[in-house]
Amino acid sequence: MANATRSCPSVNVGTCSPATSGMGLVNNAFPPEDLLKMRSCNLGIGHTRYSTTGISELQNCQPFVVDTLHGKIAVAHNGELVNAAALRRKVMRHGVGLSTSSDSELITQLLALTPPMEEVDAPDWVARIKNLMHETPTSYSLLVMYTDVIYAVRDPYGNRPLSIGRLVPVSKLHTAVAGEGDTEGWVVSSESCSFQSIGAKYYREVMPGEIVQISKHGIKSLSIVPRPEGDLPAFCIFEYVYFARPDSIFEGQMVYTVRQQCGRQLAIEAPTEADVVSTVPESATPAALGYAQQSGLPYVEVLCKNRYVGRTFIQPNTRLRQLGVAKKFGALTDNFAGKRVVLVDDSIVRGNTISPIIKLLKEAGATEVHIRVASPPIRFPCYMGINIPTKEELIANRPEFKDIAGYIGATSVQYLSVEGLVSAVQGGIPSIQKGERISTKPSRRVGHCTACLTGKYPVELEW
Amino acid sequence: MANATRSCPSVNVGTCSPATSGMGLVNNAFPPEDLLKMRSCNLGIGHTRYSTTGISELQNCQPFVVDTLHGKIAVAHNGELVNAAALRRKVMRHGVGLSTSSDSELITQLLALTPPMEEVDAPDWVARIKNLMHETPTSYSLLVMYTDVIYAVRDPYGNRPLSIGRLVPVSKLHTAVAGEGDTEGWVVSSESCSFQSIGAKYYREVMPGEIVQISKHGIKSLSIVPRPEGDLPAFCIFEYVYFARPDSIFEGQMVYTVRQQCGRQLAIEAPTEADVVSTVPESATPAALGYAQQSGLPYVEVLCKNRYVGRTFIQPNTRLRQLGVAKKFGALTDNFAGKRVVLVDDSIVRGNTISPIIKLLKEAGATEVHIRVASPPIRFPCYMGINIPTKEELIANRPEFKDIAGYIGATSVQYLSVEGLVSAVQGGIPSIQKGERISTKPSRRVGHCTACLTGKYPVELEW
Amino acid sequence: MANATRSCPSVNVGTCSPATSGMGLVNNAFPPEDLLKMRSCNLGIGHTRYSTTGISELQNCQPFVVDTLHGKIAVAHNGELVNAAALRRKVMRHGVGLSTSSDSELITQLLALTPPMEEVDAPDWVARIKNLMHETPTSYSLLVMYTDVIYAVRDPYGNRPLSIGRLVPVSKLHTAVAGEGDTEGWVVSSESCSFQSIGAKYYREVMPGEIVQISKHGIKSLSIVPRPEGDLPAFCIFEYVYFARPDSIFEGQMVYTVRQQCGRQLAIEAPTEADVVSTVPESATPAALGYAQQSGLPYVEVLCKNRYVGRTFIQPNTRLRQLGVAKKFGALTDNFAGKRVVLVDDSIVRGNTISPIIKLLKEAGATEVHIRVASPPIRFPCYMGINIPTKEELIANRPEFKDIAGYIGATSVQYLSVEGLVSAVQGGIPSIQKGERISTKPSRRVGHCTACLTGKYPVELEW
Amino acid sequence: MANATRSCPSVNVGTCSPATSGMGLVNNAFPPEDLLKMRSCNLGIGHTRYSTTGISELQNCQPFVVDTLHGKIAVAHNGELVNAAALRRKVMRHGVGLSTSSDSELITQLLALTPPMEEVDAPDWVARIKNLMHETPTSYSLLVMYTDVIYAVRDPYGNRPLSIGRLVPVSKLHTAVAGEGDTEGWVVSSESCSFQSIGAKYYREVMPGEIVQISKHGIKSLSIVPRPEGDLPAFCIFEYVYFARPDSIFEGQMVYTVRQQCGRQLAIEAPTEADVVSTVPESATPAALGYAQQSGLPYVEVLCKNRYVGRTFIQPNTRLRQLGVAKKFGALTDNFAGKRVVLVDDSIVRGNTISPIIKLLKEAGATEVHIRVASPPIRFPCYMGINIPTKEELIANRPEFKDIAGYIGATSVQYLSVEGLVSAVQGGIPSIQKGERISTKPSRRVGHCTACLTGKYPVELEW
Repeated sequence: MANATRSCPSVNVGTCSPATSGMGLVNNAFPPEDLLKMRSCNLGIGHTRYSTTGISELQNCQPFVVDTLHGKIAVAHNGELVNAAALRRKVMRHGVGLSTSSDSELITQLLALTPPMEEVDAPDWVARIKNLMHETPTSYSLLVMYTDVIYAVRDPYGNRPLSIGRLVPVSKLHTAVAGEGDTEGWVVSSESCSFQSIGAKYYREVMPGEIVQISKHGIKSLSIVPRPEGDLPAFCIFEYVYFARPDSIFEGQMVYTVRQQCGRQLAIEAPTEADVVSTVPESATPAALGYAQQSGLPYVEVLCKNRYVGRTFIQPNTRLRQLGVAKKFGALTDNFAGKRVVLVDDSIVRGNTISPIIKLLKEAGATEVHIRVASPPIRFPCYMGINIPTKEELIANRPEFKDIAGYIGATSVQYLSVEGLVSAVQGGIPSIQKGERISTKPSRRVGHCTACLTGKYPVELEW
Repeated sequence: MANATRSCPSVNVGTCSPATSGMGLVNNAFPPEDLLKMRSCNLGIGHTRYSTTGISELQNCQPFVVDTLHGKIAVAHNGELVNAAALRRKVMRHGVGLSTSSDSELITQLLALTPPMEEVDAPDWVARIKNLMHETPTSYSLLVMYTDVIYAVRDPYGNRPLSIGRLVPVSKLHTAVAGEGDTEGWVVSSESCSFQSIGAKYYREVMPGEIVQISKHGIKSLSIVPRPEGDLPAFCIFEYVYFARPDSIFEGQMVYTVRQQCGRQLAIEAPTEADVVSTVPESATPAALGYAQQSGLPYVEVLCKNRYVGRTFIQPNTRLRQLGVAKKFGALTDNFAGKRVVLVDDSIVRGNTISPIIKLLKEAGATEVHIRVASPPIRFPCYMGINIPTKEELIANRPEFKDIAGYIGATSVQYLSVEGLVSAVQGGIPSIQKGERISTKPSRRVGHCTACLTGKYPVELEW
Repeated sequence: MANATRSCPSVNVGTCSPATSGMGLVNNAFPPEDLLKMRSCNLGIGHTRYSTTGISELQNCQPFVVDTLHGKIAVAHNGELVNAAALRRKVMRHGVGLSTSSDSELITQLLALTPPMEEVDAPDWVARIKNLMHETPTSYSLLVMYTDVIYAVRDPYGNRPLSIGRLVPVSKLHTAVAGEGDTEGWVVSSESCSFQSIGAKYYREVMPGEIVQISKHGIKSLSIVPRPEGDLPAFCIFEYVYFARPDSIFEGQMVYTVRQQCGRQLAIEAPTEADVVSTVPESATPAALGYAQQSGLPYVEVLCKNRYVGRTFIQPNTRLRQLGVAKKFGALTDNFAGKRVVLVDDSIVRGNTISPIIKLLKEAGATEVHIRVASPPIRFPCYMGINIPTKEELIANRPEFKDIAGYIGATSVQYLSVEGLVSAVQGGIPSIQKGERISTKPSRRVGHCTACLTGKYPVELEW
Repeated sequence: MANATRSCPSVNVGTCSPATSGMGLVNNAFPPEDLLKMRSCNLGIGHTRYSTTGISELQNCQPFVVDTLHGKIAVAHNGELVNAAALRRKVMRHGVGLSTSSDSELITQLLALTPPMEEVDAPDWVARIKNLMHETPTSYSLLVMYTDVIYAVRDPYGNRPLSIGRLVPVSKLHTAVAGEGDTEGWVVSSESCSFQSIGAKYYREVMPGEIVQISKHGIKSLSIVPRPEGDLPAFCIFEYVYFARPDSIFEGQMVYTVRQQCGRQLAIEAPTEADVVSTVPESATPAALGYAQQSGLPYVEVLCKNRYVGRTFIQPNTRLRQLGVAKKFGALTDNFAGKRVVLVDDSIVRGNTISPIIKLLKEAGATEVHIRVASPPIRFPCYMGINIPTKEELIANRPEFKDIAGYIGATSVQYLSVEGLVSAVQGGIPSIQKGERISTKPSRRVGHCTACLTGKYPVELEW
């Protein structure tokens, strides 16, 4: 179970439909009604969390809206600019005061600030967006709204996800009751899984570096800003491992299937002499099932979640704190008492959550507990939008890691290799994704950001 | 997925420890801190929901506390008195005004009202409780608190569950960090699963008809009030099927294991030619795994839950209402596209939730969807504390039930038989439960309430 | 400025109109809309605060509603029963558990408990109310609602106020815009001033000991329960001094006019050589104007209220606490700098609020500050519903009272005499009040409760 | 009773003390604790309402804080820039996006934007403030905070008030209890009345055009930016008439005394044959007392405020809406029945509030009701921060104004003349105010903004 949190889980956008000029909007964190309500404004963008670089001020709430000489623009941002500090200095040197510490305001003022030469009367927002993309390589997925157009933008490294969905009329959905007030249109979201919630269908991803325009005339790919010669794409591999919902689609493959494949790969790399395979519910379940399928060991459940425990972190009490994570799970004793258990987890960050689970299982009768982790150890900080504990807190960097099994009380511990993870992820990517143009082919070579695992960052980090 | 709700999920009690005179208390619905906080009062009882017979007034909140000539008594009640109306008339005829419509107040006033003859100075609460038990056969599990004693009471039919747990010092729990402020003591709860949350161990059940006294002198079985000659116990079989948490223990067996056994039995009664077996998450998972084990078909996940959807019922929107239940689940397409799916559910009450799930799976590529239900059809109302829809709303009583597969869009539909359910439940009960005395043996014969499935109520219903 | 608070400021009732069968309802503490909303129930009673004898539990909220053999009754109560403890024992001895510590529940159970002999089928609520009135002499104003009738009841001593108002159709009110949805009817409230807020006219008081019936057939005086031979009425004199709103009417006279008369009387009893007369706003203003009129000294304002200060008591801060009451008032320096000020207050309870005001005036330039208090010193506790500080806290019982002027920093301090207060109150009562019947004449002799000033309680206090 | 509202009631500032380097802060709308809490930051500014020109967005909340190349600056603003639209265009033309529609952000960005030539390393904030003052003539009182300095600024016309107070150690205040944690320092507020609430003493006003610096080195007048040759100051005369609290001091005189003088002047201009003089409480009371003193007629109270009515505007109900304003007041009948009443009000804006009051008095027995208004009719909009109804809504611009007495139901209506108001205001101003320097003398000539009464605006209005 990873304790890392993703700063900006989604950037979402409402779009307009050619047929009906109705609008759609999607978000996987706001309750869908709120977003659909915004449809009456014809266009809308929403966002869900504060930026990681800014303090938790109210002003850091997205989207950021400003009035410019040409009217209002609104910007929603998912990611974290690697060169934010330098860009802030540049903007302030121009005489602009920044009222928040968020990247969204910074991006908005950068867009307002730098009119390319050729502009005379009307603003050339696409040129301004390209300008911006040349000034900051990563990481960002953006939605920029101006009067009747929304631009969906993904940085040249494609570090953060961004997907396009098509809003289907309810009358055409078998799962829905037909009715009035029906709409067509386009929706954009960090996670494609949110499309289903409002009756939209996955259409395609925004490509790394791509600027997609959505308006009442439909959807149009305007441009693809290239990466520096030789650089590979760098989509965050941790989205596959932990963050994304299992029914989301990235790079043409379903996250669930990738996780299952990680479990299979793990069974190949780290086979175990044991009686049953199980999961730390619920996030590790696909990997555990993959491990079971590959190894031929029977899959059983050994833990059930206690739904009432979440609140204990809010009003802590000495005894309950001492009981720790164990109280979050009930042991399904009959399934493993007297047996050797392989327990698959998706990731181990600090090591303090898995330990009491192992003790719980042993106390309830497991003769052996083998921990198999469906991702490599995390060793390095992320500067691109994922809140990872400091280097010192990461179990993989601590002396205890040498005897990790002893430290956490497991019979054995084994991790998936970086190569194994990369192959599980890249092995399932189809050779050409939907919506991809031939001309973008050279830059389409496969690549992922594994910085938190390897320390190899996709771009040089400026401070 | 059953839409029935249980009125009174738990009656819980704090108890006192001989060793340390510390107190413990447990509840599986209140956040545990709140309950432990009550420990400082030395004794405490808590409860979680409104009674089913009373309107949802604030006053119906439990426990019910009244001041009597002998001091305060507090009563928490799980269940529904089958002869509540007659008892209300009796109390009011004595000149008592009832300020709520709850059974808890009724029981409290009955206890206050009827001093047995032999009382002179001090109240004989045990005699009063026995009196009460002779006036109302079922259904109730009670906690009655008076100054420094708590009485845990289960009706002679044992219709509602009631378990005793022993609070273990944190220092003796491997899963916990040792610390100060440690406590020993006894806890009582409807569901034994709640014990683990506060570091208590399952001890035993309160027997049907038993009055157990908990005080600083420890725990003591005072009496067992017998059933009428020839009557069997009548523990609610639906606790096994749907309500209880899977890691709870009733009658010496774990609920999860019973559900898994129901799945195995279902595979025997209703085998299917198919490619994969899956579950409607999360409650049907043990039955689905049992079905897979018995049938030899591979178990896969086909649906993932959308956690953000719960709120849509609060602020409904036309489009979202039309999308219905489908938006609650994401389809894990890769696991079943092009395949024949056996989808195991725990129960079908109204039939309106399973239908869109089937459509979702078919739309995503399932070639066949066979519904297998791990319990028999519900046909009759419950008068003992379970909120079941009216007879007219129950799918099993509607004309559509004749062609239920066609009605819900499934390839085939099959239910577990009543006999199959009963054998799955009773097959695993050990011959003698812990804490059971030889003298209770005759009344210990196994029996369950299957009224909602068969219409055979354990007692004659008075109105 | 008195720091005492009245426990139950009002008991209010909606009543039905013969003409339109519309209903009216009034309350001077609930927002009027809430009350009018209740009109749709045809009859309704409301109340505003917790009883003084009960702890601040939610259950003590009024009105108290219980179900009896004959249906629901609801009781709202203003006052405090002098023999509550004895009555509680009586009720509990009958076997009734009391779920709150409020007098309202006690009264309700007493009404439910004691069916007079002659009742056969239908309950004789009037006989039960008379029974109750014989069991408890004071203090209470009651509203008892049963199906389609409300009984308005005042204790035989008339200790707590109760007034009847007539709801006038909006179309007949000059101050209102005519419109649809118009209503007629009767309303009952502790304070007649509340009538105007909803467009009702003051009709008359409920007499001491009177039971008034309000139904769709109109209003009817049923009975007057007499006091013991020789006892005078005992309406709380502090309602005139401090609690009531100045535009309320008691005993045929307006409270404002009584207070002005107290000021005049005070000027006769305690004349002052000074330059200006002023008030501690706002409650002392009528007395101050009376003092100015009688003495011939000019009336000016010397203090203005700071509206933002109220909240300081919620989030206290050391400096602000040190600043104390002075920060609640601004000094209108130009009106008194270099002058001798007579400052009239309505009452002095603890003496800690007037002291900083005097210092504020002196610091701002007043050469002398003479305090004149328009009521006698409070020396005794109230057992009839007024929260007065303990005997020890009352300034009049403390050693400092000997040199009260020196203690609070005033040039001189003088109080109105008890005789002066009584004469100011009784001098303005008309010889016969509206609605009074000849037969009640003997019991109509004038009398007031001055227990907090004299220690003479209207009835013997039972414990 | 005026229905106009003032946009920005106060700009407040905490300042530092030379002696203790403790800090003080004051605000008459925030609860004082909040402000004092800010003291721990050593410097702080606060504000209370949204700007009038901006929509009610959360972002319009003051103070506005931005990060610049030189660090953070915070700006609080009271007033409304007459050339805001032109200045916004200027800022946006420079490429700055404005995230709110408030003047505060506009001023902040103007200060960030325009570095005067001579700046090399450190920012010259005083030069930037002077720059700003040359770009916008009125109306603003500003507080600008930068690291350890606060600048208090008033526009050259002095349209909005700004006063300086000295925080006195609690130990030196007679009205306060001595204690630890004592502080000295300087505080700045729109209204001097707020000083007393936290134990500060009025020191002096910031002069029109003046820039005052407050730091740990104390208080220092840096500069006075002059008005164009020949222009008079233009302090808002409506602060005297209606907005300010009566114990505030402007231009060396107390607001209460000015209002009393307006009442006297009104008695001279509009004498009445009548029996009593009274007020519409509470704002008109000083004018009513002045009228009574000048005319020799006795002053009485005829209305008492109903404190519970405020909430009726939140949940309106047909009947209560029809009852209108009358329900806000109780009639003190005894004081005026059978008499001719002079009712003094401070202003009449729409005419719809005074009308039902007159009817209430007549219905309760007043034989004549003469309305005397202690200010001239409002005829013109304000563009400098006061929310006045549109020209069409103002009663003085409507046809009904011809027979205003008939329209509102009064026996007669008379207003104070503009000349009378100006003489009442200017007659009491001392020839030299405290803190004024000789060199500022020429620009010190007396003058007030009477634009809403006369249409003569102090500066030409740009759009």
